[in-house]
Amino acid sequence: MSAIALLTDFGMQDWFVGTMKGVIIGINPQASIVDLTHEIPAGNIQAAAFCLLASYHYFPAQTVFVAVVDPGVGSSRKALALSLDKYYFVGPDNGIFSLIYQKIPTQKRKIYCLKNSKFFLHPVSNTFHGRDIFAPVGAHLSKGISINECGPSLDKIITLDNPGISLIDNRIVGTVIYLDVFGNAFTNISHDALKNISGKEYWVKIDDRFSLAIKNFYHEVPSGSGLALFNSSGYLEVAINQGNAADRYHLTIGTKISIQAH
Amino acid sequence: MSAIALLTDFGMQDWFVGTMKGVIIGINPQASIVDLTHEIPAGNIQAAAFCLLASYHYFPAQTVFVAVVDPGVGSSRKALALSLDKYYFVGPDNGIFSLIYQKIPTQKRKIYCLKNSKFFLHPVSNTFHGRDIFAPVGAHLSKGISINECGPSLDKIITLDNPGISLIDNRIVGTVIYLDVFGNAFTNISHDALKNISGKEYWVKIDDRFSLAIKNFYHEVPSGSGLALFNSSGYLEVAINQGNAADRYHLTIGTKISIQAH
Amino acid sequence: MSAIALLTDFGMQDWFVGTMKGVIIGINPQASIVDLTHEIPAGNIQAAAFCLLASYHYFPAQTVFVAVVDPGVGSSRKALALSLDKYYFVGPDNGIFSLIYQKIPTQKRKIYCLKNSKFFLHPVSNTFHGRDIFAPVGAHLSKGISINECGPSLDKIITLDNPGISLIDNRIVGTVIYLDVFGNAFTNISHDALKNISGKEYWVKIDDRFSLAIKNFYHEVPSGSGLALFNSSGYLEVAINQGNAADRYHLTIGTKISIQAH
Repeated sequence: MSAIALLTDFGMQDWFVGTMKGVIIGINPQASIVDLTHEIPAGNIQAAAFCLLASYHYFPAQTVFVAVVDPGVGSSRKALALSLDKYYFVGPDNGIFSLIYQKIPTQKRKIYCLKNSKFFLHPVSNTFHGRDIFAPVGAHLSKGISINECGPSLDKIITLDNPGISLIDNRIVGTVIYLDVFGNAFTNISHDALKNISGKEYWVKIDDRFSLAIKNFYHEVPSGSGLALFNSSGYLEVAINQGNAADRYHLTIGTKISIQAH
Repeated sequence: MSAIALLTDFGMQDWFVGTMKGVIIGINPQASIVDLTHEIPAGNIQAAAFCLLASYHYFPAQTVFVAVVDPGVGSSRKALALSLDKYYFVGPDNGIFSLIYQKIPTQKRKIYCLKNSKFFLHPVSNTFHGRDIFAPVGAHLSKGISINECGPSLDKIITLDNPGISLIDNRIVGTVIYLDVFGNAFTNISHDALKNISGKEYWVKIDDRFSLAIKNFYHEVPSGSGLALFNSSGYLEVAINQGNAADRYHLTIGTKISIQAH
Repeated sequence: MSAIALLTDFGMQDWFVGTMKGVIIGINPQASIVDLTHEIPAGNIQAAAFCLLASYHYFPAQTVFVAVVDPGVGSSRKALALSLDKYYFVGPDNGIFSLIYQKIPTQKRKIYCLKNSKFFLHPVSNTFHGRDIFAPVGAHLSKGISINECGPSLDKIITLDNPGISLIDNRIVGTVIYLDVFGNAFTNISHDALKNISGKEYWVKIDDRFSLAIKNFYHEVPSGSGLALFNSSGYLEVAINQGNAADRYHLTIGTKISIQAH
């Protein structure tokens, strides 16, 4: 009996998330349901994909992630169940799972198209597949059905057009890909990328406007001062100790961030 | 052992909802607690009633709904436990349960006044019956006490003054009764009501200012365009594909919406 | 097997709280996890401390409170596990537990410094001890490890500089210490303090600008009128029946509130 983690852009204001949970406990009364977040900005598949990437491996093996950021609901977009390493993922085929998918070795990933309607809630609405398809399929997976009962296997899923990092003159150039609630900015520069440059000192530059030192934790700089660090997700983060870096440095998704070695 | 679904207007900022859950698990450690929502606008009984109506039937039979939107707490308003069809409801007698109550056949509904204080938390405060009365009674119901132990039966509950729909010249006139977090507007016009008018084409009118076609799902119109559809709750909804209809069309609770057949 | 209550200032927007829950259910799959709140204002230890004080005793004995409002994460601040009366508390040593600590008799409180890294998640990050230290230690405590396995005992914890109440001319002077989501203002004047003054009438004064009568519940005054009452937490509260007292009376943390007996 495995856990079910939910991620949506539904917010908690309406009954949408609660209704998905009602459907889940109707199928699996023992389900241990965890809210990953329901406050993904509406329709922001990139933010949802990063949120899943940063968190999934902290859950126990066999956890079923039901992820519904689904602006294409009711259109011809496919519905998926994936087995990626030790985890299951259920949701729309729109790139939401692609960051994890690209990280997992080919032999440890399987894709199925949700076609077996015996695991759906009927009638299936055109506007709320979270409740009618993804929640019930997730609940059945958490009860132990075999994932290949969900439908035919597929060869590939839709992947996001990820901004990459580039190397220019002993400099790694990446971009901000996520802003958290405190105004900390997460970039796509992983700690591993550092091995591509060398020098005695490393400086982080924001759009060539600001320079920040790389520290180990927030309190290494005075309250109100800026810093960069490789954070708990393993990526370069721009932050202000007890302050809001997104506001101070005018950071948005896509802002260029670089590390220069001297 | 049944599930407990919670609906309040307490928000999640303070300790109020957490405290209700503490009381519940003190009585029933095995309780499966689901948050339906805690973001009902403060004191908005109509929104709470619609939220319960749209969601309760997705939960498993025997679920106990503890609903606390209770501007009259401490006054002489009654406290209720209801058995409606296969579900239990606990909360104040202020109309919050009336939309479901009116839908359930007479022989499948029972009303009890919460008088048996052995199921309360003592001392009972004057300002937080959610914690001191409704949560503990709900927890006891989820453990299997008979609902008639809660207190004497009643003949009727307070019902909301629902805006009805009217039929004028092959036209159904209803009103907006709920706005969701995406700006979609839910009306009180159910799909069943369509049988009262006839024609080759159906158009939805907003205050005679805008006309919208009835579609099956959001993606049938281009991104940014308006549409109407019978949504996953079975009611006519006014929406914009990937946009906010409430903002665009200046929709509020009470805005007149009509369907005209040609 | 005991419950785990979580309090943080992380909000629910990002994956932080969900990740802590993933870690917890990986250690204790049967954990009953309750969100106390995750919307403590960022870094506001005083608000967190009051929130814990107002709610902990409504939870069943043996509940483990994991409280992470931790602006000093990564610095030299200590990490704690406390046994206070019938409850456990895990979090940073920054005053967050001090209001409860000061209330519990000396012989019923024990303090341990979290040093035993076998209960941590590895590697331990510098920025997210909620996930890497506090959540896993809390999960192990909920599974029944002895709290003295967590590390060496300590003699004292950091306590907040609490604003006290004072007695001047048959008048109790206190301050606003918490504002809830409805705009109700909680003061540090407990009902017990009333015994220090005497008279036929009691009036509550806000900064000498406004006078309010002490009532038993909100509905004793007309909608929109102000009142004071000893609320469900046992402290004097300033409120407006169906209104927002913080806005009306310009109340903030620290505003002086007094009770005058005549």
